[in-house]
Amino acid sequence: MPGAKKDKKTKQPVILITNDDGITAPGIKNLVEAVKDLGKIIVVAPDKPQSGMGHAITIGYPLRLHKVHQFEGVDSWQCSGTPVDCVKLAVDKILHQKPDICLSGINHGANHSINVIYSGTMSAAIEASIEKIPSIGFSLLDYSMEADFSASQLYVRKIVEQVLKLKIKNPHLCLNVNIPKVSKELIKGIKVCRQAYAKYEEEFDERKDPAGRKYYWLTGEFKNFDKGKDTDVWALANNYVSVVPIQYDLTDYELKKQLENKIKG
Amino acid sequence: MPGAKKDKKTKQPVILITNDDGITAPGIKNLVEAVKDLGKIIVVAPDKPQSGMGHAITIGYPLRLHKVHQFEGVDSWQCSGTPVDCVKLAVDKILHQKPDICLSGINHGANHSINVIYSGTMSAAIEASIEKIPSIGFSLLDYSMEADFSASQLYVRKIVEQVLKLKIKNPHLCLNVNIPKVSKELIKGIKVCRQAYAKYEEEFDERKDPAGRKYYWLTGEFKNFDKGKDTDVWALANNYVSVVPIQYDLTDYELKKQLENKIKG
Repeated sequence: MPGAKKDKKTKQPVILITNDDGITAPGIKNLVEAVKDLGKIIVVAPDKPQSGMGHAITIGYPLRLHKVHQFEGVDSWQCSGTPVDCVKLAVDKILHQKPDICLSGINHGANHSINVIYSGTMSAAIEASIEKIPSIGFSLLDYSMEADFSASQLYVRKIVEQVLKLKIKNPHLCLNVNIPKVSKELIKGIKVCRQAYAKYEEEFDERKDPAGRKYYWLTGEFKNFDKGKDTDVWALANNYVSVVPIQYDLTDYELKKQLENKIKG
Repeated sequence: MPGAKKDKKTKQPVILITNDDGITAPGIKNLVEAVKDLGKIIVVAPDKPQSGMGHAITIGYPLRLHKVHQFEGVDSWQCSGTPVDCVKLAVDKILHQKPDICLSGINHGANHSINVIYSGTMSAAIEASIEKIPSIGFSLLDYSMEADFSASQLYVRKIVEQVLKLKIKNPHLCLNVNIPKVSKELIKGIKVCRQAYAKYEEEFDERKDPAGRKYYWLTGEFKNFDKGKDTDVWALANNYVSVVPIQYDLTDYELKKQLENKIKG
């Protein structure tokens, strides 16, 4: 695995776990349980829900960090900041070194297609990968706090075990894993995919407060504009676990070539 | 220009302007001034600073939108949400159609290299490009609220004029433009670049509050790990205006090829 520095005492990999639904969400508990015996686990997660925070960081306010006893036998801290803040603080103030891998989730709800950009779960994983910490974000296509995570636990474990043994040169490995909302017997396997061009068509629900002033709730309908069979949306609709390798380089190289002689002055 | 639908009455392009420093920041005033006669301008910007918000959206709270008289002769609204919320609300509740172009900024401070990911300015532009609205984010390498925007105004105008006339097929055009902190006489021109692998090496400043409890401020030192001469960091250090074409597809296709037979089950 790229950049692996095992825990000095135990020689086990150091696994940093975070999420965006907050440290008390069932999803992170299920993630901890799924990988608990694969290494030394450290949890640093938000003290409140941080869904939809994207790659936000806290720059105008200071951050708080409190040790909590949330998971049996696992050192855990809750942080007042965003998922990305959690990763930064964990490395600088708790681990004092880079972990061998960073896992984020299991998110309550889908993070496939364009949702990767809005997702606090995936932004924590991307933040780790920028820092050359291999990372994986996990999401289950079920928003319920009572969701069944048994298939998720199985596939989380399969994927983490494989990534810990991977021999590839890319130090910025980052995976976006989504798990369909079906029982494990119905899951057909794992598919490495590309991000679909599928997104919410937003509408704002306009309401009036008791004083008669307007306010707006974000709502929307999810639409898939991408007919490809190599996408995460296709894989999930066909009961596969989708794995999309993610990069932090946003340069559009194709457009760069087209514009080189067109934007000048 | 891709997707252009001119204003029905004036036949001028409709230009949506937003930012992340808030509607009262000098940067957005300078952006409005630079392009005021190029089309019908509509401003929808945050009612308070939203730097570092990345691609955050507001999902747990409703949003407020208030008409303000901030710029002479320009319809303007302030919004209680993030820069991305501003773009979504502007399209759905103010314009009731897609504008011809979305401009974001001028940001007070750099958004080159990895900073594009944390930037509210650029996330607003990326949000527009996802919606097939051509977009440009502008940033000046000067954090001061007293910054001199005269060179920025000149290059903003040059670039917007060229983009409005562009004949390319990509409906998701998005540009990240950074302007060096030098007088216009010293600027050597415009360079189309790639995003550098350059970033802050973070450290948290640990302090104690009056009750003796620890808190942490994010600080850091900017480091360039990228020796390429085709990057935005190189261009800016050499007094060029940098233009990086930006994509919203985060799929790492190279890594996808490598992993197709390695992650399975």
